[in-house]
Amino acid sequence: MSRHIEREIEKLKREILALGAVVEESLHNAVSALERRDPELARQTIDGDPAIDQMEVDVEENCLKVLALHQPVARDLRLIIAILKINNDLERVGDLAVNIAERALFLATREKIEIPLDFVHMADVAKKMLKKSLDALVGEDPALAHEVCRMDDEVDAINREMYGVIQGAIRKQPERLESLIHLLSVSRHLERVGDSATNIAEDVIYMIEGVIVRHKVEKYQARDSS
Amino acid sequence: MSRHIEREIEKLKREILALGAVVEESLHNAVSALERRDPELARQTIDGDPAIDQMEVDVEENCLKVLALHQPVARDLRLIIAILKINNDLERVGDLAVNIAERALFLATREKIEIPLDFVHMADVAKKMLKKSLDALVGEDPALAHEVCRMDDEVDAINREMYGVIQGAIRKQPERLESLIHLLSVSRHLERVGDSATNIAEDVIYMIEGVIVRHKVEKYQARDSS
Repeated sequence: MSRHIEREIEKLKREILALGAVVEESLHNAVSALERRDPELARQTIDGDPAIDQMEVDVEENCLKVLALHQPVARDLRLIIAILKINNDLERVGDLAVNIAERALFLATREKIEIPLDFVHMADVAKKMLKKSLDALVGEDPALAHEVCRMDDEVDAINREMYGVIQGAIRKQPERLESLIHLLSVSRHLERVGDSATNIAEDVIYMIEGVIVRHKVEKYQARDSS
Repeated sequence: MSRHIEREIEKLKREILALGAVVEESLHNAVSALERRDPELARQTIDGDPAIDQMEVDVEENCLKVLALHQPVARDLRLIIAILKINNDLERVGDLAVNIAERALFLATREKIEIPLDFVHMADVAKKMLKKSLDALVGEDPALAHEVCRMDDEVDAINREMYGVIQGAIRKQPERLESLIHLLSVSRHLERVGDSATNIAEDVIYMIEGVIVRHKVEKYQARDSS
């Protein structure tokens, strides 16, 4: 029995990792589409979302099956609940990738905007956070998870900086207002990817240490204040 | 045994409703602070958030206890998993209320902006959705839950309209750019409250009907496309 549930949990972990890999790729493609002004890649990202949604539904169904059949307790129970929540977060990141792809689609039809800040870097940090949070899950590595929580500050800082830069650009080029508002949305979406990765990392810490770390740092400041 | 779990589930429902009531009030206060340009009320909303976070942590702990002690299956299991997910969504709405209160705090220090669209109405629809989704949970009423999903279209439409209106206002009053960007954020936050209420409603439908309805309507369109 106990070995059987271990196998089931390994299977759930593989499923969530597979979902994570597809979501990472979707995010990567959305940002590439924005950078390269590639409407085809943007459309491909949008068209890939129903497959992500289906994977999320499958993972949830499988978690419920394992809960019902094996009635796990203690650490196994916490692990499955963590996978359920991480599943939810990954699907949200998939939605954010679609949102970025939609902005990329719009911006590809307009004149190119030069923005002094680097979306590619911001996206890289967000993607690294996502990857590390999933590695922390698989390796059951709380140190790696804590690292992800710290990285979120960098993404938040870039997002805040982006607000100032884009407001400056609107003042200089008021005729590009619509495009610049779209870029502001992209920055916000990337910041929310960082938030989701942080949620995942916090769930990993909870799963391993049994300690709920979320809300410990936000106190008087909402996490997504943009 | 079965009676015992029924009592535990009723208790969890009461706890999630209590959380819902506090979150509703927080959202109401945040929007009132914005409307009335009341920094005191805005600060009060922000200061109330740690209590919401603690309630969320408690509900999650209690759900895990019930899962471990009673090892529910079928409908009871689905109900507890739904409560876990709804708990998560309510906490996110609490964060959104804080974000709105932070905008209210900023805007109260600037000259009043007249915006032809009605934030109070948008907030009312979002709050109604939240309330109905919790009523649907308590009454186990899928019809009410389906109604919430339909109401989300209205909030999305108001948010889209808000984008156009605020862009027009920026063109007319470029010196008010910063304040107008803050108002745009409020609109987006309210739209995300609608999304959370929709998530809750979908979880209620799943709990009762055992059918996952989410992703059925979004297909090629991310839910939060703003």
